[in-house]
Amino acid sequence: MKCETKKTIYLDNNATTLLDPQVLEVMLPYLTNKFGNPSSFHLFGQETSDALENARNTVADILGATNKEIFFTSGGTESNNWILKGIATANQNKGNHIITTAVEHHAVLDTCKYLEKNGFQVTYLPVDGTGLVSLDALKSSLTDQTILVSIIAANNEVGTLQPLKEIGEFLKSISDNSTVRRKIFFHSDTIQLLGKMPFNIKNLHLDAASFSAHKIYGPKGIGAAYIKLGTKIDRLLHGGYQEKNRRAGTENVGGIVGFGKACEIIKLYDNKLKQKLYQGLLDNIPDMSLNGSLENSLPNTLNLSFKHVEGEGIVLLLNAQGIAVSSGSACTSGLIETSHVLKAMNTDIICARGSIRFSLGKNNTEQEISQVIKILPPIIKRLRKMSPLL
Amino acid sequence: MKCETKKTIYLDNNATTLLDPQVLEVMLPYLTNKFGNPSSFHLFGQETSDALENARNTVADILGATNKEIFFTSGGTESNNWILKGIATANQNKGNHIITTAVEHHAVLDTCKYLEKNGFQVTYLPVDGTGLVSLDALKSSLTDQTILVSIIAANNEVGTLQPLKEIGEFLKSISDNSTVRRKIFFHSDTIQLLGKMPFNIKNLHLDAASFSAHKIYGPKGIGAAYIKLGTKIDRLLHGGYQEKNRRAGTENVGGIVGFGKACEIIKLYDNKLKQKLYQGLLDNIPDMSLNGSLENSLPNTLNLSFKHVEGEGIVLLLNAQGIAVSSGSACTSGLIETSHVLKAMNTDIICARGSIRFSLGKNNTEQEISQVIKILPPIIKRLRKMSPLL
Repeated sequence: MKCETKKTIYLDNNATTLLDPQVLEVMLPYLTNKFGNPSSFHLFGQETSDALENARNTVADILGATNKEIFFTSGGTESNNWILKGIATANQNKGNHIITTAVEHHAVLDTCKYLEKNGFQVTYLPVDGTGLVSLDALKSSLTDQTILVSIIAANNEVGTLQPLKEIGEFLKSISDNSTVRRKIFFHSDTIQLLGKMPFNIKNLHLDAASFSAHKIYGPKGIGAAYIKLGTKIDRLLHGGYQEKNRRAGTENVGGIVGFGKACEIIKLYDNKLKQKLYQGLLDNIPDMSLNGSLENSLPNTLNLSFKHVEGEGIVLLLNAQGIAVSSGSACTSGLIETSHVLKAMNTDIICARGSIRFSLGKNNTEQEISQVIKILPPIIKRLRKMSPLL
Repeated sequence: MKCETKKTIYLDNNATTLLDPQVLEVMLPYLTNKFGNPSSFHLFGQETSDALENARNTVADILGATNKEIFFTSGGTESNNWILKGIATANQNKGNHIITTAVEHHAVLDTCKYLEKNGFQVTYLPVDGTGLVSLDALKSSLTDQTILVSIIAANNEVGTLQPLKEIGEFLKSISDNSTVRRKIFFHSDTIQLLGKMPFNIKNLHLDAASFSAHKIYGPKGIGAAYIKLGTKIDRLLHGGYQEKNRRAGTENVGGIVGFGKACEIIKLYDNKLKQKLYQGLLDNIPDMSLNGSLENSLPNTLNLSFKHVEGEGIVLLLNAQGIAVSSGSACTSGLIETSHVLKAMNTDIICARGSIRFSLGKNNTEQEISQVIKILPPIIKRLRKMSPLL
């Protein structure tokens, strides 16, 4: 993978991924001569409208949904905002309590904080030391006001996988079995899960889920919301009649076609390179610890702490060697603050500040991983020598 | 302009435009090797972050704004939704009255209807027979609760230009001169104006304005909001710290870079081709009337009514000859309903139903216009022969 003329190693695939050349290829006609507005009645509109529906079918197929349940948005953040606000306000007459976790992405956390200022009560479920929520904690936080549960499928920083199926089955059982209880809607931010682990949306009993194309080798600026048929939800964007009159705005046809292709060519990872990276670093760096779980985790994500050093220092020195990793998530990495995820996991503060996320991708090679195992240990040694924390 | 192998004439540039090849060229690196997340700390992030800020500077320059006042969004609809909802809710403690017009795009109209359901009162200013609002009507609709005025700069269906400068100066004068009155924010949906007429945002005294890239030969799925420094506005999309912590979501870097280039290469129209088209059709078709004004109008937009025929019939028969026009706006053209704009202009219903919008673009030629002048008259004749309205 190249960036300028320097040889670089990109290990920040949870932040964003390289557009797959096959995806660009199918997008190009829609960035050139196939440019009509899909809402237009004429042939220019017809050909883009057809492309839109083909992409919708592909995305629906991959997720195990129907095409009536897929709505294109501008990305994962919009999907999360729309689903949470839209379900909350549309079902406000049935209750005002929402349950989520302390380890959500900011797009969910900050939306929940907004809802708290607008008449809703939100429970943020705690997690254990590996970042895992428990079904029991969820059960005991339910009230007769609970209308929505939102649980991140796979954490973007540490990769921990939540027991979505177990939670989905439980929520379904109370909706099915009770005569008086209203429906509790179940949403998941599945943005990091898609493309990395196999899953079928119906098996998880989800009512809504959020997706982003640029995390799966598709283009930036496009995402999708899965909204189960019959789900009561308000609009976020008002205006034209696009997306079955639920999401206004001229459709980003090139992006949508690219998203469809990115879904079609998903190639799941195994965790071999991650295992190799972990073992290699463990053998060569003392006082290193794993954040999260090695097994109950995304196969591409490895979050490590190096005692007595700052994460930013590691990022900068690796960067100087052409290796791209991140400390915290991309959305917060501009700020030097301790990750809310590691805090919720009760990670030792000295370790949390020295944490690095490696997120591998389909373009990484064994050779690149060997290179990192060679380059990182002396960097940690050097930083520890300078450390005011020691 | 080509679509498939058939020779076609595209006259629907208010719906969307062909991406300029120069725009695609600058986008391509950001759809290939320059793919980092701008929020990332490493070199991949740095190069896209730089590209983002360069594009912001270009857009700001073209508009006469500063780069701190430009925020990228997913398009015009998001910009309109954000600005109206964001200013309304952030200033709710000062008043709950909004003034707009009856001839706004649905992205403004439907957002206002949403706000009406959420505690706001909205006045929809009437227009005259050419689609023009009057400053006097605006003045007499002001109350001490008025916090926001939103006036479309140029109507997307008929092209009528509103007296923005006059309104802006008036609103500024009451904000400046009164000791007790609070600020009345002035927003304009300037989506159709940009790229067609010269304008400087500061001269219009706007506090906020909405823009879309795909109307000016840029990509779909990207837009911008101008928000004057010091304007109190809530967020629409919560989450990460992008766009100066005002609009969350990973930035659509390719789209943004393309939008910057599209702004940079804006080539204003004159109205010669529109005049030629109008005169040519007037000379050859009886019972034809102009909707709107020929002079106080976008130089590319011509909305005509043909008595006793349905607009959809004309669109379909022109389409069969490879000519793309629209009846109504693209966002509503899927539905057979009379345009709310023509209704507000008090257009005779029989004429309104037979209306067609020609919206010309920089790629149209004189030869194409001559072709339309030859092809349309027999189509109208044929449709009138079959008309149940006659």
